[in-house]
Amino acid sequence: MWPRKDLIELLGIAHPIIQAPMAGSTTPAIVAAVSNAGGLGSLGCARDTGQSLRERAGEIRRATNKPYNLNFFVHKNPPPDPDGVARMARRLKPYYDELGLSEASEPKQIYPDFDDSIVDALLELRPPIVSFHYGMPDADAVAALKKAGSVIISSATTAEEARWLEDAGADAIIAQGYEAGGHRGTREPNTDTGLGGIALIPQVADAVKVPVIAAGGIADGRGIAAAFALGASGVQIGTAFLSTPESGINPLYRNALLRGADMGTALTRTISGRMARGLRNRFIEEMRAYEDESLAFPLQYGLTGPLQVASAKKGSDEMLAMWAGQAVAFNRAMPAGELLETLVEETRAVLAGL
Amino acid sequence: MWPRKDLIELLGIAHPIIQAPMAGSTTPAIVAAVSNAGGLGSLGCARDTGQSLRERAGEIRRATNKPYNLNFFVHKNPPPDPDGVARMARRLKPYYDELGLSEASEPKQIYPDFDDSIVDALLELRPPIVSFHYGMPDADAVAALKKAGSVIISSATTAEEARWLEDAGADAIIAQGYEAGGHRGTREPNTDTGLGGIALIPQVADAVKVPVIAAGGIADGRGIAAAFALGASGVQIGTAFLSTPESGINPLYRNALLRGADMGTALTRTISGRMARGLRNRFIEEMRAYEDESLAFPLQYGLTGPLQVASAKKGSDEMLAMWAGQAVAFNRAMPAGELLETLVEETRAVLAGL
Repeated sequence: MWPRKDLIELLGIAHPIIQAPMAGSTTPAIVAAVSNAGGLGSLGCARDTGQSLRERAGEIRRATNKPYNLNFFVHKNPPPDPDGVARMARRLKPYYDELGLSEASEPKQIYPDFDDSIVDALLELRPPIVSFHYGMPDADAVAALKKAGSVIISSATTAEEARWLEDAGADAIIAQGYEAGGHRGTREPNTDTGLGGIALIPQVADAVKVPVIAAGGIADGRGIAAAFALGASGVQIGTAFLSTPESGINPLYRNALLRGADMGTALTRTISGRMARGLRNRFIEEMRAYEDESLAFPLQYGLTGPLQVASAKKGSDEMLAMWAGQAVAFNRAMPAGELLETLVEETRAVLAGL
Repeated sequence: MWPRKDLIELLGIAHPIIQAPMAGSTTPAIVAAVSNAGGLGSLGCARDTGQSLRERAGEIRRATNKPYNLNFFVHKNPPPDPDGVARMARRLKPYYDELGLSEASEPKQIYPDFDDSIVDALLELRPPIVSFHYGMPDADAVAALKKAGSVIISSATTAEEARWLEDAGADAIIAQGYEAGGHRGTREPNTDTGLGGIALIPQVADAVKVPVIAAGGIADGRGIAAAFALGASGVQIGTAFLSTPESGINPLYRNALLRGADMGTALTRTISGRMARGLRNRFIEEMRAYEDESLAFPLQYGLTGPLQVASAKKGSDEMLAMWAGQAVAFNRAMPAGELLETLVEETRAVLAGL
């Protein structure tokens, strides 16, 4: 009975494995490689404008004729916060000094608003699948995207959020466990109840009628088989795909992933302003005491971004944002298509052994 | 291939389901009911002296001839901390006042030391299984218990802890996920990495040769089947057994469990001094800002214990310690033996459907 048919038929894919969108780390090449292997490749588009979206979607379409997914943060940038920025700039000054940076006065906008310019581009591009983080766009946008033929997916961290997303029109729902790397998909900031996958996935499966996609801490056939046992129809896997040659991460981050079991991961707001899980490096450790001072998402990222760039330039991972989930210990370096096929074979073997 | 044979043969049980020891909540009656149904009943003995242990083990043996488990915290009480106690007494004074209690001067010792008097009682009782939390007793005690015929189990929250426990002589290892209710089984306080079960269980399974028992957030056949897929040979389930009539919890706690999905759970040190997960009631919420002021385990419990007694007497659950895991939403009120049988049937059905 593996795979369950509902999700693979909805998405038009062979294997119910979604390579997670990871803004800044996914490339058209990894999306095409995963989709060509029968999974669903996802491009993290949180940093895209309408124009860059058209270019990158075009690259994907030239490299595969299979379904692919474009992912967005449903968010607006917060109002300016000059006092908060000044305070955080003072807090970060030792790091700026250490890296030879002059103090940031005006933080760069890392993620543009999710607005009509993005929706218009999507209506033109008609991607087979569009997925969201932090909720759903307004009802008009959802209706228009669906009319254009896109399947809509979004992330829940509780059964209540899952019900809300289903009501708002989601065709499938990602149950994102506490184990997941990157940003927590809570609808509202600072509302995380921290449900781990084993507890969350069956609660979400009971709460909604649409197919459920398990995410967080899944890195091999054991995790995939477990997700199916828990009631999911598919999985979304991020961290494991970061170690493929097609991912777009820098070599410091790539190397750090191999030390993931020793480094461990932690949740922090101090990088972007929203809770996200990354490899526990010097920045995360030292800033732990100042979590509550973090600026609203993604304003905080505007101030830490220059540190990340400068840290990378210096050849150090001490101040990089290196998102990773709790199963990072299982990461293995192989091409994305081969990883997808390996995951499918492993899952079959685990299920056959139960 | 369900169940895997290693654990059930080691423990001499029919079904690889362990009812978790929960000190203060488990009774000889629930232990006997679970063991008689073919699982492994466990008595939480953290509060026992050698004498009470002999009495309670006797009750179990009169009620079942099947294997049973006695569980202990491997800990010594910390040195007196009069300054800390005075500070925490001031912090708790509003609650003491509200409940009409005079301020505590000398906290009661809630959990006696794990010492020779306990080991001597165990060597006399020769329980089929003895399990530990917070590590392992010293090598001499472990050797003596094994020589007396007891199987030894302990809890790990990381692969590293699991390897350490195996080296120290554990015959099976519990992989306790972040989802679990009650006390986190980290060897050292305040070292929790918060690994959820989906990420933790396969890491522990890869790290040790002895059978692995999955714990945390498991409440029905889906969770049990998932644990097997992840590499466990059995499961330990606590919260689900609290709603059985054989559990020893007070009616306020029993009622609150039915509202578990709405209340949610949280980890806190403010009740006992060690991180533990319980239903998010008024005390946990209000004390959240003072986590770092908590006294060493179990000194803190000595100061909060009177609040719990008085709160219960007043008919309020606002200041009770109501340990519960993240799958509390699935709790159902049925006799313990029937719950055990239901879990076995559900697991078979889930595995047959994969």
